[in-house]
Amino acid sequence: MFDTAYAALSNVLEGRLTRSKSELDQHGLSETWFPHTPPEAVAYPETTTEVSEIMKICHAHGVPVTAFGAGTSLEGQTLATTGGLVVDFNRMNRVLRVNDADMDAVVQPGITREALNVELRSTGLMFPVDPGANASLGGMAMTRASGTTAVRYGTMKENVIGLEVVLADGTIIHTGSRARKSSAGYDLTSLFVGSEGTLGLITEMTVRLHGQPEAISAAVCSFDEITPAVEAVIATIQMGLPMARIEFLDAESVDAVNKYAGADFPLKPHLFVEFHGSDATVAEQVETFGEIVHDFGGSDFEWAAKAEDRTALWTMRHHAYWACLALRQGAKAVVTDICVPISKLAEAVEQTRADIAASPLHGPILGHVGDGNFHAILLVDPNDEAEIKEGKRLAHLMAERALKLGGTITGEHGIGIGKKGLMPAEHGAAWGIMGQLKAAMDPTNILNPGKLVP
Amino acid sequence: MFDTAYAALSNVLEGRLTRSKSELDQHGLSETWFPHTPPEAVAYPETTTEVSEIMKICHAHGVPVTAFGAGTSLEGQTLATTGGLVVDFNRMNRVLRVNDADMDAVVQPGITREALNVELRSTGLMFPVDPGANASLGGMAMTRASGTTAVRYGTMKENVIGLEVVLADGTIIHTGSRARKSSAGYDLTSLFVGSEGTLGLITEMTVRLHGQPEAISAAVCSFDEITPAVEAVIATIQMGLPMARIEFLDAESVDAVNKYAGADFPLKPHLFVEFHGSDATVAEQVETFGEIVHDFGGSDFEWAAKAEDRTALWTMRHHAYWACLALRQGAKAVVTDICVPISKLAEAVEQTRADIAASPLHGPILGHVGDGNFHAILLVDPNDEAEIKEGKRLAHLMAERALKLGGTITGEHGIGIGKKGLMPAEHGAAWGIMGQLKAAMDPTNILNPGKLVP
Repeated sequence: MFDTAYAALSNVLEGRLTRSKSELDQHGLSETWFPHTPPEAVAYPETTTEVSEIMKICHAHGVPVTAFGAGTSLEGQTLATTGGLVVDFNRMNRVLRVNDADMDAVVQPGITREALNVELRSTGLMFPVDPGANASLGGMAMTRASGTTAVRYGTMKENVIGLEVVLADGTIIHTGSRARKSSAGYDLTSLFVGSEGTLGLITEMTVRLHGQPEAISAAVCSFDEITPAVEAVIATIQMGLPMARIEFLDAESVDAVNKYAGADFPLKPHLFVEFHGSDATVAEQVETFGEIVHDFGGSDFEWAAKAEDRTALWTMRHHAYWACLALRQGAKAVVTDICVPISKLAEAVEQTRADIAASPLHGPILGHVGDGNFHAILLVDPNDEAEIKEGKRLAHLMAERALKLGGTITGEHGIGIGKKGLMPAEHGAAWGIMGQLKAAMDPTNILNPGKLVP
Repeated sequence: MFDTAYAALSNVLEGRLTRSKSELDQHGLSETWFPHTPPEAVAYPETTTEVSEIMKICHAHGVPVTAFGAGTSLEGQTLATTGGLVVDFNRMNRVLRVNDADMDAVVQPGITREALNVELRSTGLMFPVDPGANASLGGMAMTRASGTTAVRYGTMKENVIGLEVVLADGTIIHTGSRARKSSAGYDLTSLFVGSEGTLGLITEMTVRLHGQPEAISAAVCSFDEITPAVEAVIATIQMGLPMARIEFLDAESVDAVNKYAGADFPLKPHLFVEFHGSDATVAEQVETFGEIVHDFGGSDFEWAAKAEDRTALWTMRHHAYWACLALRQGAKAVVTDICVPISKLAEAVEQTRADIAASPLHGPILGHVGDGNFHAILLVDPNDEAEIKEGKRLAHLMAERALKLGGTITGEHGIGIGKKGLMPAEHGAAWGIMGQLKAAMDPTNILNPGKLVP
């Protein structure tokens, strides 16, 4: 349908445009239950100018454009659901500058968070945002990702301070600055962060870096029931203890991790925690947290003081999604992602557990409870429509509960196609405003059409 | 010109619409050098519904609408430069809810930061953002204000988590949630924060609260030159020391403070600092900071350990603007507000000092140097056009330098009418995008017309 456009693109990209079935197929996959949705073509730009040329051509021909980083998003954000072109940022994966003194870096969007941290290793700095998957920075910005360390270091919202963006018509703009704050007009950086490729394509980003902590300590403890585990988290957060990570896994998640990673944690709700700071402050934090855990009837800590033990621990946590999937052969997941005010967390987790217990589906629960954010990984047979429907029903119950409790339908995964139906419930008339902004910036609706906005 | 509209408004507001000269005059003042600009009418709504009715009427009649809080903005944001209506939020000044457990509060926009903190006193919580002036929360949100404590607690960007906004046509929307994070679509909260009343009127806001620190310690130290003082700040920030406040005053500012407050600080560059935390962490911070100051040749600290001494110290700092104005009878100020990456701070301050030294104008320099943000208070005779021109020339030099150094033309005061001419230099094509967003949300351009956008 867009053959002329693809020929022009291939010319501009010196052949870095593919229509080979295997590459289209690969870009049509998602991590969750969405159907396979290959695009018509995939472009691999290497420069901002090329991205701008791509958009000019697609704008002229009305070709839908969907951005692709590492393909780890969970709500189908990278699927070209209306066909057209996928722009894969794989070849724009360099660190352009590290400003040690100001603790920021300018990077291309295709770099993954692990690759960035490898490059930073010798600087004493790190990029802490850690959604688990080895996502691309551009993708993380576009879904406003967060993960295990957001409780201490913030989400992509707090850690992206400037952007270079190519707009729908190919115009290149710059947002933000390297200053620590600014009052110079509308906060366009924040508008693009979380916009899921619907307003423009990120070609460069300035991110905040943080000092590698002098001391790190990680530990695991268990509780007999969900409620005291979650209440211990609430008490910790309310006290303002600067936890670097504080993760909850229910007994089913622990079972999954044990089976997947050959571990032998007791089959009870667990907290996985990490402390960052100086030797003295870490020791103080550990002691305070220990007292809280004791007060709520938790077990003694199992320590992971050595770096390799810590890595093993967080690898288990990061693989928990895959571990949950492995509980049932051939299963796909309906992944939920609610986030509630911390005071409502115990209620939200308990009622979710009860909903799942009353359903035929399995659904381990785990999450970044320091932010009030947790996931049920609802395991469904992707070929069984009744199961998908039941998964969606449970997900819907969770989302409605989150809103009733003053929270949000998604803490970190974003909307994509999976949660679009819930947007009116969360935003009411404000969802229409999002649509107006989209229409103003992309009047022909070629940027990731069908996602996020009405 | 809008008599029919004003009659309708008076009806809706049950008389809380005034056209009395004295009240119009009062709402035509600004804190700086802008000419007196009275509006045609002032409305005093008491509810969101009334604000919505106001906007419906003004929308129907094309009446320009400018929001007014405490009138402390510095770039003429509250001046009705195209006539029309000022909406004064004075009567919408209540705390609606304090959620202790989640450390947030829902407030009306007319409440001042001091009044909010008085209401919070017994809760153990505080709202820390402190621009010096006793500004209204709504006004602070609209200029993305910050001030002395932003180095520790963030600016309004980080501390406003949700809004109720009345749009140009009277539609009421809600943005954000009480969850600590969300990926549910465009970040409309951040779009409104800093929009200076050009996109909608805030009628309710959810703000983050912070724990009142267990221990507070404040101190003053002096340096022989500007550069080592600023370099001590840079070293402090780069080390990640969690200063609660770290303020710079040059010798001229100190002179002004001495004369205004009857103090006797030596006429040298000073740092005013404050530490928040537990007794142990404050002691540790003080010691570390003391070593840094010593390394850069600073004086010993003069302590303000008692609460009343601290209050006196920060009152002096907060009154520094008035103290500077009092250096010259009848003077008004061209206030500058640049913010640069911290590594460029010494360079920016030194070169600014040199520019002013070479000018006939006086201009004390002071600022929130922990953020890389500082102000020169350029004293001009408001009736002398040549002086105003010279003030603007110096301000322009500073702004250009800030941009060249990777910074911003305004760290916290905003754009209003005063800095609009510099927006293309900072944003390039992105300024046009701001204009497109404004046009999408306020197609008849009745919300604070003439400010911020092209």
